[in-house]
Amino acid sequence: MPNENESMNGAECLLHSLVANGIDVCFMNPGTSEMQFVSALDRVPAMRGILGLQENICSGAADGYARVTGRPASTLLHLGPGLANALSNLHNARKARSPVVNIVGEHATQHTAYDAPLTADTEAFAAPVSKWVHTTTSPEDIAASTAEAVRAANTAPCGVASLIVPADHSWLPASAAAGPLPLPQQPRVDDARIDRVAALLRGGGAAFYVGGRSLSRRGVEALGRIHRATGARVFMNRFSASLPRGRGREFLVRMPYFPEVAEAAMAGARHLILVETAEPVSFFAYPDRRSTLAPLDCAIEPFVSETEDSLDALEWLAERFPDVAGVSIDAPSEVAKGALTLDAIGLTLAHLLPDDAIVSDEMVSSGEIVNKHLISAARHTILPVCGGSIGQGLPVALGAAVGAPDRKVFALEADGSGMYTLQALWTMAREKLDVTIVIFANRRYRILEIEMQRTGVKSIEPRAQSMLDLHDPELDWCALARAQGVAAARAETVERFAELLKQKGPFLIEAVL
Amino acid sequence: MPNENESMNGAECLLHSLVANGIDVCFMNPGTSEMQFVSALDRVPAMRGILGLQENICSGAADGYARVTGRPASTLLHLGPGLANALSNLHNARKARSPVVNIVGEHATQHTAYDAPLTADTEAFAAPVSKWVHTTTSPEDIAASTAEAVRAANTAPCGVASLIVPADHSWLPASAAAGPLPLPQQPRVDDARIDRVAALLRGGGAAFYVGGRSLSRRGVEALGRIHRATGARVFMNRFSASLPRGRGREFLVRMPYFPEVAEAAMAGARHLILVETAEPVSFFAYPDRRSTLAPLDCAIEPFVSETEDSLDALEWLAERFPDVAGVSIDAPSEVAKGALTLDAIGLTLAHLLPDDAIVSDEMVSSGEIVNKHLISAARHTILPVCGGSIGQGLPVALGAAVGAPDRKVFALEADGSGMYTLQALWTMAREKLDVTIVIFANRRYRILEIEMQRTGVKSIEPRAQSMLDLHDPELDWCALARAQGVAAARAETVERFAELLKQKGPFLIEAVL
Repeated sequence: MPNENESMNGAECLLHSLVANGIDVCFMNPGTSEMQFVSALDRVPAMRGILGLQENICSGAADGYARVTGRPASTLLHLGPGLANALSNLHNARKARSPVVNIVGEHATQHTAYDAPLTADTEAFAAPVSKWVHTTTSPEDIAASTAEAVRAANTAPCGVASLIVPADHSWLPASAAAGPLPLPQQPRVDDARIDRVAALLRGGGAAFYVGGRSLSRRGVEALGRIHRATGARVFMNRFSASLPRGRGREFLVRMPYFPEVAEAAMAGARHLILVETAEPVSFFAYPDRRSTLAPLDCAIEPFVSETEDSLDALEWLAERFPDVAGVSIDAPSEVAKGALTLDAIGLTLAHLLPDDAIVSDEMVSSGEIVNKHLISAARHTILPVCGGSIGQGLPVALGAAVGAPDRKVFALEADGSGMYTLQALWTMAREKLDVTIVIFANRRYRILEIEMQRTGVKSIEPRAQSMLDLHDPELDWCALARAQGVAAARAETVERFAELLKQKGPFLIEAVL
Repeated sequence: MPNENESMNGAECLLHSLVANGIDVCFMNPGTSEMQFVSALDRVPAMRGILGLQENICSGAADGYARVTGRPASTLLHLGPGLANALSNLHNARKARSPVVNIVGEHATQHTAYDAPLTADTEAFAAPVSKWVHTTTSPEDIAASTAEAVRAANTAPCGVASLIVPADHSWLPASAAAGPLPLPQQPRVDDARIDRVAALLRGGGAAFYVGGRSLSRRGVEALGRIHRATGARVFMNRFSASLPRGRGREFLVRMPYFPEVAEAAMAGARHLILVETAEPVSFFAYPDRRSTLAPLDCAIEPFVSETEDSLDALEWLAERFPDVAGVSIDAPSEVAKGALTLDAIGLTLAHLLPDDAIVSDEMVSSGEIVNKHLISAARHTILPVCGGSIGQGLPVALGAAVGAPDRKVFALEADGSGMYTLQALWTMAREKLDVTIVIFANRRYRILEIEMQRTGVKSIEPRAQSMLDLHDPELDWCALARAQGVAAARAETVERFAELLKQKGPFLIEAVL
């Protein structure tokens, strides 16, 4: 922080306060009203600014960063419309319970009365995705509000805090920076509840449905011990922020996507014990099908809520059971050859995924087959699309690579969803991030062909089909990548795919299906 | 419309109602909850579905379509997050007073209670950009609500209407389609007000500041007659939906962007007569500078509001003055040669723009110089970024080309802003639209370098500079275009630029500056 005798403007105070509150990365797409913030970067070297070419890149990257570090990044967005561009990935961040702190510029106070072109209701844009929204009331308000924003983002269940800063507050003299505020202690689950769940587990027929921080390393260890001792199945909410997978974690079952498959997977469960998640529901509703997924004769047993300390509860619960040894599955022995099918891609990834890799999973229709194979890969972390809004796969991979520079990052990406935020490739190149992107190029919105029939449409006629088709013209993903500075190659055989997987990132593989 | 004896589902009713209300184009990016709508395209052939690869393409295209046709297109968007992706161009449409009807899918009614991943407050996302928001209450409500949505969009001042349709309302049987509702008559300006303005004009020192429909052909004729008879200057709100320009329209002065230049342009005006616009204000506020632009001794004279009939008022006013002959400027005689400067591009466009061309203008920092030359081009229509949110240039050009297939469309686009919505190129290729895109490739956010200094930053230091720089890596716009099916070439001399301008679109010229 600067010498107290030096005068700081509001933007400098904001940056210093963010750094003092543990935020040292800002994914930004600034405009005129944020110029003081950009200028202050040279006076606050602890803050790393990372430029995105569209705001949804910035918000998705902040989500990815939070999921791998557990800490918020900031974004810098240009007024209401700039924030608007970031909203769909902020929706995903909200559903992931990712802490994110948006800094949103606003017109200077005296200018808002005039309905200039960019004037909009910035707080209203922020509200649907934010757990906390505030417009600074003066330059002196910046320091304390920044600390409040960070506290809000970090308080369980974590989420998005949006701090709106009028331009004049940025350029006027401000007070000293503010340090962090205390976080509320997470309540512990009491013994009676642990006893009750332990009894259910001993009785047989109980299964877990888990999400949130219970899927961190400590939670997985506790769940593994309980599973080995009791045989209780453990289903993961497939829309949790990060899913631990790979060898040694095969007892963690990712809940299937389609409702009848999910229901079948849970068959026989008489009690479903919820940890940091609500009961399982289908992604969409369909005619003549209920929204809930648990078998009708299965009782829902809330165990740990999102505001309670799940790791503490799971560890206490695990202590009630003996620590018996388990048997892990082997690495795959079969090697895929020839045509580049989804099975071949999955098997090849299962062979070649390095230990502790991060996988941003936006494969959409290709995901079920590929993920089936990944269970025998080295341990890795899957980052799914928690809010279901496609266009986060590449930005989340970008943010994860910034947050975890020592871990290899893969973005497994459908071609349709990849196109929403392809500009993320440019930032990956600029920041020289070791991300390998695999584009599953089936040239269509395949998932919608499936979903259309599920929603009661008997046959897909030509005009409808054309709205699901990406063949005409065909997208050249390698050219899209190279045009943004990312090396790329096409794979049409599994041998070529395996060879390309060894490239250091950023590197894009167009897997032609 | 189908035989009344046939049963229609809600989606079919919706499509038939849109068509019956004069909407026959839908820019769409559908998802599962909109599958019934997509399927219904084959049973409602009057509706043309146009696919966009990201929702902001769809909303920007609907804006462009409305600006050249005066009629709304519809969009089809996937739940709250799909709508969220469309918001920044809906903000621009709102500021342009463009009629747009959003159809937004929603989870089936019974599913919303379960907080599935895509569940969000869809109405809250719609509110900041919409003048009308409604969620259908039943399948039977769809017909009447569609007619209401179209009426809301078409009622002056026109704007965005958002109709949210739960999936079950789409798949269940619905009532018959509904036809159009009457629009309210626009009030006429009374004689006293016309007398007063006529007197101001006769007194000298009066100038017009005009926007909206007063810039249509009829309004321009009336304003021209008044200008020739009285010498009154006519300033156009530079953020109006469409700006008539070129030879014969040189008396219409586009208000300059920077406030001190705008103020100087209006010097000497003692009365500023407002037609369909508020008084001129600067785009941004700056330290030590007021927001308003009119000289301090110039009185603001509201003449026609946005809800009144401006064409009627201007024609009645014009009748008070003799119809004297005017002299128009000549086509440019000078031909640019050699280096591809902004002046050379402007001059070349002034030579080669065909009559009645449409120009989507998102040149940002390059605009002032190029536009200066365009005044001597054949008459054309400029579509500016009315809401100041960049990323509309390509989508607006796309929509304009759909709405006006007989007119040549140009998208004059900065490289920074073009990257926000580059996916529009794919739809241009797919729909084979005659759009020529010129990318002004200066490899930086040049406008922000200017704005940073204007907001009081004395020098741009290295870390700040890097946030404004797009050199590393360099974007290859020709490759980005070809990868999406649009032919493209690079121009580094003005001769090459002139040659490429003659290509039939879609064609992209990367003008290297």
